[in-house]
Amino acid sequence: MSAEIINVGDELLNGETVNTNAAYLAAKLQEFGIELHYQTTVGDDSLRIQKNLKRALSRSSIIIITGGLGPTKDDITKKVVADVLGKQLVSHEPTLSKIHNKLKDLTSSISKTNEKIALYPEGAQIIDNPIGTAPGIIISENGKRIILLPGVPKELKAITERNAILCFSQSREKNYVIKHQILKVWGTPEAKVGEVLEDIMGENKNPLVGLRVDVEEGVKVSITAKGGSVAIAQKLIEDMENIVKQKLGDAVYATGETSMEKVIGMLLSINKKTIAIAESITGGLISKKITDIPGSSNYFLSGMVTYSNESKIKDLKIPEELIKENGAVSEQVAKAMALAVKNISSANIGLSTTGIAGPSIGTTNKSLGLVFIGLATDNKGCQVEKYQFSGTRSMIRTKTAQTALDMVRRHLITI
Amino acid sequence: MSAEIINVGDELLNGETVNTNAAYLAAKLQEFGIELHYQTTVGDDSLRIQKNLKRALSRSSIIIITGGLGPTKDDITKKVVADVLGKQLVSHEPTLSKIHNKLKDLTSSISKTNEKIALYPEGAQIIDNPIGTAPGIIISENGKRIILLPGVPKELKAITERNAILCFSQSREKNYVIKHQILKVWGTPEAKVGEVLEDIMGENKNPLVGLRVDVEEGVKVSITAKGGSVAIAQKLIEDMENIVKQKLGDAVYATGETSMEKVIGMLLSINKKTIAIAESITGGLISKKITDIPGSSNYFLSGMVTYSNESKIKDLKIPEELIKENGAVSEQVAKAMALAVKNISSANIGLSTTGIAGPSIGTTNKSLGLVFIGLATDNKGCQVEKYQFSGTRSMIRTKTAQTALDMVRRHLITI
Repeated sequence: MSAEIINVGDELLNGETVNTNAAYLAAKLQEFGIELHYQTTVGDDSLRIQKNLKRALSRSSIIIITGGLGPTKDDITKKVVADVLGKQLVSHEPTLSKIHNKLKDLTSSISKTNEKIALYPEGAQIIDNPIGTAPGIIISENGKRIILLPGVPKELKAITERNAILCFSQSREKNYVIKHQILKVWGTPEAKVGEVLEDIMGENKNPLVGLRVDVEEGVKVSITAKGGSVAIAQKLIEDMENIVKQKLGDAVYATGETSMEKVIGMLLSINKKTIAIAESITGGLISKKITDIPGSSNYFLSGMVTYSNESKIKDLKIPEELIKENGAVSEQVAKAMALAVKNISSANIGLSTTGIAGPSIGTTNKSLGLVFIGLATDNKGCQVEKYQFSGTRSMIRTKTAQTALDMVRRHLITI
Repeated sequence: MSAEIINVGDELLNGETVNTNAAYLAAKLQEFGIELHYQTTVGDDSLRIQKNLKRALSRSSIIIITGGLGPTKDDITKKVVADVLGKQLVSHEPTLSKIHNKLKDLTSSISKTNEKIALYPEGAQIIDNPIGTAPGIIISENGKRIILLPGVPKELKAITERNAILCFSQSREKNYVIKHQILKVWGTPEAKVGEVLEDIMGENKNPLVGLRVDVEEGVKVSITAKGGSVAIAQKLIEDMENIVKQKLGDAVYATGETSMEKVIGMLLSINKKTIAIAESITGGLISKKITDIPGSSNYFLSGMVTYSNESKIKDLKIPEELIKENGAVSEQVAKAMALAVKNISSANIGLSTTGIAGPSIGTTNKSLGLVFIGLATDNKGCQVEKYQFSGTRSMIRTKTAQTALDMVRRHLITI
């Protein structure tokens, strides 16, 4: 069973928009064990969409078309699909009501234009769009499945997340369902994760366990299970999730869509702990991540970006001699920074970063990517970890931020 | 003249990698006035690459293929292209030396594998890769141009930036050259920019002026000029650049690849001014952007992330009554924050942000997206600007950060 994605939209062909939908859908298909063979982008052009759809029908069993479901003149996807399949476009009443409700204060001509959103090829299945008006559409025809999704990434994702099984379940029988889960790992390299999970990985297993890597989020372990019912598939997932967690231990920091900063926010809230951060190499990135989470003001007491030596001395009262003797990128300074920011803000946890992000290593004889992270806590004094990261300036900063947050997480799960 | 992009790589079809190359190349083609009709992604599969290339040759005049130029077994692009065109693969001596130099300390078997990188279809033109080993390749055949580029985005970009004219110049005659330039605009909406530039825009003009929008970087005005020599094309660009700058005035903040934070870094350095930042709504994002620039410790004195009311009171000594009376999101608090951080750090400029990023508006009766930005300077006291931004939490924070930096820029160009 192979799939193909057709992304429709002029904005994807003039460089205005990076196509994130393709990678998102590709990952989803992967989770369901479906091979993606082709991805094509075409503009808002009837003839080109038509040609691509016909070609796709001749070679793929699942065809996902994104974009062109909206109300404007250049939104032509549904018309083209209906024409190719020899179907009529009919109006979907619930969607129509939704549109009328939403637009009730607007003029009737706008309302009229928007009624186009409710049209769908006769006989197709409508999937509700929880955050927008244009719904998803699934057409089953001669053993092929055509899935139409809106091009707005947030809407496409919202629809797909809620209906992944409906869209991608490989089994045509109603009594088979597929469930999947992602476990995120930080601090263990991909090769090591692969080694540890070797005996549960492999093709044609149920559940199927796979790996992929992301610079920002680390190693992602995906589990896909197939079962005779939702409960059975869910049980398979949960059992395997426990096995993976047991094998990898604390390295698993989150499941599903949850981010590291979300986990830390929850752990700080549950434990009623507060945090303060003194950033040098990360320059504000850790504070930015922590405050990405709504409600973070409850536990995030203070962030100090002490990028220059002067600022370390002035804002954090780090003794000038300490910096002179050891350099700003040192275990000693990381420790002093973490203790100082904890003390100044009266937080339960003080976190600090100092390192060399490059591109030049400045006047020191230390190596590019050398990083010290300090973690001062109420009972355990101050722990400092030394790292040697590789990559560009931006990658070194990203890895440092995530590793620092992970140190906080590992501390919080042991208290 | 129409173009087509074929992106080759399994990593693009399993969701591991978002295809940023396609959007980058699409924008580049746009600058040269070349229409992109198709973009296709295929895996590392000979037959599928071959079929796509043949189809592309039948319908497009410029075909750009990315990826699969490396040394490993799944890097098959050059072989497929050579086969389709009936050409031999031959070795490019300068590239071979580069590889041998780079790998001189490694075993001969690794060296042997890497020699594959130097192979290219006979008669093709080699374009140097300034940051990697695999060069770009241009094949001109029966009025068609096939351009092969490495899949690593940084390398692809480095090669393309230096050789854009060679790759995308529409004119086949040697004595015509095309030059282009981008002007970045912040603080003026796209529609307004379009209105102001209306009389110099339009199809088939020389230079050609186009617009596109980016959430992070604002409106981008592209200028593409064609001339009988580099000097003539360059003169056309410069004249038009001056006209656009005259029409848009201070709203143009940068040209080419230069970012807002780079501009501010240069302006601060030139004027020997220093800056300190107190961030609430942006939570560290402005400090992170400023410190994205190497050497920023020379002018960035201090960043304080005072996200909670407590931290504003404690770290910035904002009077508690001021927050109680006006709310944390107010002109008064923005002003007090900017003045406080300037004062505490003895910087020439104090910048502050406070606002409601959502998703909820908390206990205030203020609207989502309401933002105040404060700018305290040596001679002009403290200026506060009020904004009402729209979009998601992340978009509101991004817009606030860029607008705050733009306020600093506008201040610096008037002193």
